[in-house]
Amino acid sequence: MSDIYDTIMDLAKRRGFIWPTAECYGSVAGFIDYGPLGSMMKRRIEDVWREFYVVREGYYEIECPTIGQEEIFIASGHVKGFSDKMCQCPHCREYLRADHVVEGAGITGASAMDAAELARRLRDIPCPSCSEPLGEVGVFSFNLMFETSIGPGSQRKGYLRPETAQGMFTDFSRLLRFYRDRLPFGAVQIGKSYRNEISPRQGMIRLREFTQAEAEIFVHPEKKDHPRFSRYSGYRMPLLGIRQQQEGSPAVEMTMQEAVDAGVVAHSFIAYYLALTHDLLVTIGVKPERLRFRQHLPDERAHYAMDCWDAEVYSERFGWVETVGIADRTDYDLRAHEKQSGERFSVFIPYPAPRREKRVRVVPRMGALGPRFRDRAKRVAEALEASAPAEGGISVSVGGEEIFIPPDLYEIREEEVEVPGEEVTPHVIEPSYGIDRMIYAVLEHSYAEEVVKDEERRVLRLPPRIAPIQAAVFPLMNRDGLPEIAGRILEDLTTFGIVAEFDDSGAIGRRYRRQDEIGTPFAITVDYQTPEDGTVTLRDRDSMEQVRVPVRDLPALIGSLIRGRTTFAELKSP
Amino acid sequence: MSDIYDTIMDLAKRRGFIWPTAECYGSVAGFIDYGPLGSMMKRRIEDVWREFYVVREGYYEIECPTIGQEEIFIASGHVKGFSDKMCQCPHCREYLRADHVVEGAGITGASAMDAAELARRLRDIPCPSCSEPLGEVGVFSFNLMFETSIGPGSQRKGYLRPETAQGMFTDFSRLLRFYRDRLPFGAVQIGKSYRNEISPRQGMIRLREFTQAEAEIFVHPEKKDHPRFSRYSGYRMPLLGIRQQQEGSPAVEMTMQEAVDAGVVAHSFIAYYLALTHDLLVTIGVKPERLRFRQHLPDERAHYAMDCWDAEVYSERFGWVETVGIADRTDYDLRAHEKQSGERFSVFIPYPAPRREKRVRVVPRMGALGPRFRDRAKRVAEALEASAPAEGGISVSVGGEEIFIPPDLYEIREEEVEVPGEEVTPHVIEPSYGIDRMIYAVLEHSYAEEVVKDEERRVLRLPPRIAPIQAAVFPLMNRDGLPEIAGRILEDLTTFGIVAEFDDSGAIGRRYRRQDEIGTPFAITVDYQTPEDGTVTLRDRDSMEQVRVPVRDLPALIGSLIRGRTTFAELKSP
Repeated sequence: MSDIYDTIMDLAKRRGFIWPTAECYGSVAGFIDYGPLGSMMKRRIEDVWREFYVVREGYYEIECPTIGQEEIFIASGHVKGFSDKMCQCPHCREYLRADHVVEGAGITGASAMDAAELARRLRDIPCPSCSEPLGEVGVFSFNLMFETSIGPGSQRKGYLRPETAQGMFTDFSRLLRFYRDRLPFGAVQIGKSYRNEISPRQGMIRLREFTQAEAEIFVHPEKKDHPRFSRYSGYRMPLLGIRQQQEGSPAVEMTMQEAVDAGVVAHSFIAYYLALTHDLLVTIGVKPERLRFRQHLPDERAHYAMDCWDAEVYSERFGWVETVGIADRTDYDLRAHEKQSGERFSVFIPYPAPRREKRVRVVPRMGALGPRFRDRAKRVAEALEASAPAEGGISVSVGGEEIFIPPDLYEIREEEVEVPGEEVTPHVIEPSYGIDRMIYAVLEHSYAEEVVKDEERRVLRLPPRIAPIQAAVFPLMNRDGLPEIAGRILEDLTTFGIVAEFDDSGAIGRRYRRQDEIGTPFAITVDYQTPEDGTVTLRDRDSMEQVRVPVRDLPALIGSLIRGRTTFAELKSP
Repeated sequence: MSDIYDTIMDLAKRRGFIWPTAECYGSVAGFIDYGPLGSMMKRRIEDVWREFYVVREGYYEIECPTIGQEEIFIASGHVKGFSDKMCQCPHCREYLRADHVVEGAGITGASAMDAAELARRLRDIPCPSCSEPLGEVGVFSFNLMFETSIGPGSQRKGYLRPETAQGMFTDFSRLLRFYRDRLPFGAVQIGKSYRNEISPRQGMIRLREFTQAEAEIFVHPEKKDHPRFSRYSGYRMPLLGIRQQQEGSPAVEMTMQEAVDAGVVAHSFIAYYLALTHDLLVTIGVKPERLRFRQHLPDERAHYAMDCWDAEVYSERFGWVETVGIADRTDYDLRAHEKQSGERFSVFIPYPAPRREKRVRVVPRMGALGPRFRDRAKRVAEALEASAPAEGGISVSVGGEEIFIPPDLYEIREEEVEVPGEEVTPHVIEPSYGIDRMIYAVLEHSYAEEVVKDEERRVLRLPPRIAPIQAAVFPLMNRDGLPEIAGRILEDLTTFGIVAEFDDSGAIGRRYRRQDEIGTPFAITVDYQTPEDGTVTLRDRDSMEQVRVPVRDLPALIGSLIRGRTTFAELKSP
């Protein structure tokens, strides 16, 4: 059975987008190499992401190690809770992910089953690897973090991070100072994350080593209006909220303002990033009709999350694939690290004007305490001052000893104090992108097969700014000075920062096809008219139309076509 | 003792260049975080590197996983040979790198000592951690690769890569096809590498997780002339060759052409990358007077390497620090993977015209073999055909049995055959850059303290294209519409892709100082003249001079100053 995934991966392998890792040793599932074109495309997508989050949103990027010490992941809950249920086939000894096997047999709800129930269901299911019935198998939890040890003598346990997010949390205090103690602020990270999947069988969709782009935005818990919401308040897109899912009805088209007003989305900070994510995904080449935003149902949402949405991208092979997650994680992460580290992760928020507040406190009567407790009097007094006021005497602990202080040794005083502000633990809004899945989606969505003049044409309709090769330069013939002119054009384009490729082998039609297949948006042909009038033909990948343009305009023109400041249609009819 | 390293790291921490990792849990040695400014600067340096290697040299970037399966590192020799000698202090239980402890005690040549000798020398040396004499300690080898296991049940051993290079070798066949089977070609990788150092004590200089930028260039073993050598043949720089080191004489200034002609450098391919590396390091802000190229001595060079040079950068704290390595690794790596994988890593090089060559071969006489060997006759004949011709009979092995074939059962025939070309195993030229050390060097070399108008000024004289913040925008006063104008300028710069910062707090002088300290090359001040004539002052970080320029020219002007197409001096006297 060959489907679009096979077609895409075949093209990706042949042309240098994606290669199996260490093929000569038999590749291990869950790892891929980005070849020359794939790596270029990946960097362009990451740069678009940076344009949205770093340049426009103003959230600086940081870079933390991929190896983290154990405490970080104890705090985050990954050491305890980041695991999948697995079993081992007693016949072929293959390790299997239990819920996937059960689901593969057509039983729904497997992800919510406990080990005992999974084991019960597995009994009559054949092993997906050797087809023997699994029978009585044990179901175990397997932690998905790659483990290693730091330094000799297994001194310190380390884990490869399962997400980039924790770096932003452990750097919270430094970030807060960098942003001069003002909320909201954000930091982002693009980098490798790791999940030691039990038996990944979905190619680029389930990788053991993958690239994430995550933003952690720290906001005031009571101020969840995005300061620039107006940019996206009128942005219209389909939302599959909890209600639509429960009623089995289709996604509803609405503007972000409507979504917030109707309470479909918890607040404008989430709504803003739903729209921005839609904008970003469409910009890199995801087809809007194969993109939907689905709200997590109450029972699938993490217990601490207040609202959570997935951007899901449709693949003919894999169905709806979760590609971006956008969540309000409340103060869960900062509180967890506070608890584990003993450090306080909060922001001092000054009141507009200092507030006068009434406070009731205990004031020791030193004249009476002194004779009674002698050299311990000072410590007793301190303990008293720190105690909650009580009318009928107070018990304090001094040097490990409980001492009852009768009411005549202190007084209770009501005072007015000036309070300049309060300590607030920020909430975290997290948009988290899976770069590899985005790349696969863009490849699948942009791929087309057509018949042009009785010949098959395979084309990747990549947005020009995402295409790895931005322009191709062909001499029509391999003589009469045409290759030299083409070579100089190539050099001019390169100097201008445009990635261009020279090709002089085979018929022009074949050269076009080769570039179409890797998504090169523009092809320049140097022909016999070029030495005469200094013009070349410029061909558009999608319309396959051509215009003649002056050689000297090429770098600026191609540059502006790539950036979308000019369209090819405008060139046709100026 | 506080020196420049402490000063730089203090600034780096305070201003968001470099932070201790997971500070709230007590950072582990050998790991750092790049904060907002450091991460920005790092990306800019990586982009300069890409401009040299990807855009100009035309070597495509690939991206391989950081986790590699065991076979890769068996082949590369890392499983067996990538280790340091260590010991453990019997008093404080600290693990120590044995050669470093011996060297720290003033004994030279420790890196070449074996375990027994190191143990002998350690006896009387005090532990650098607790100061007790080490006494009788065992010295062991410790492999520096981080180990992990892939999948459940410890199915497969994996290592975190100690260098990015192996990915280019295991992808060799795919790369060769991508480059259409023609030498020379190259591929590069920028990414994380890992070395589980025993007890790293040198901050940014010795990291357990670090970033490398490596190029592997595959060349014909007999054609080691760089095709574009003319670009750097006249490039002049000091070389500390083997002879200068052996004679204790200083580095010699020469052009790359002279270096090749005099045999100081093995060939022009190496010379080209020495010059390119000098060019690149100076471009990012390494001071030429604190940069030298030192050739490996025969006994420090890897046994397979034909010639090897280090770009060493001088640090006041660390002395000369190896930052880039440039080596001719011959066919060592490809042969090693051939042997381990059984795959052939070679290039078919066609002769200009097919060659007719004489071949002598054994032709079995089937008429005689048939009756003699019956059903084994065919296999005997095959074995004969594959044997080296010999006059007096040939021994062949069939089914594990040695059989002597007398000369009457075969004939020896001389034939002329047409040979179209030959299989060649390419040699590898490898420039390998340590990005983190480059970043530290640039920070140290660009840092200056000056007294300006009786006030101390700390300034990072970063090249404008490396500076994390490229322009600062200040309203002179926080009223009268000046902040609004400054805000619009900031937005215009951002739209143009320039990273700019707005600052309206404190006196202008203090705002300048804040930007000087992080290396921002240009500062724009909106003053009362701005609303009148649409001009602002533009201040140059290094000369501290100012010019008035029109607001509308700012984006293009700053852009061209950053790219070095305009200099500030030119603005002063147009």
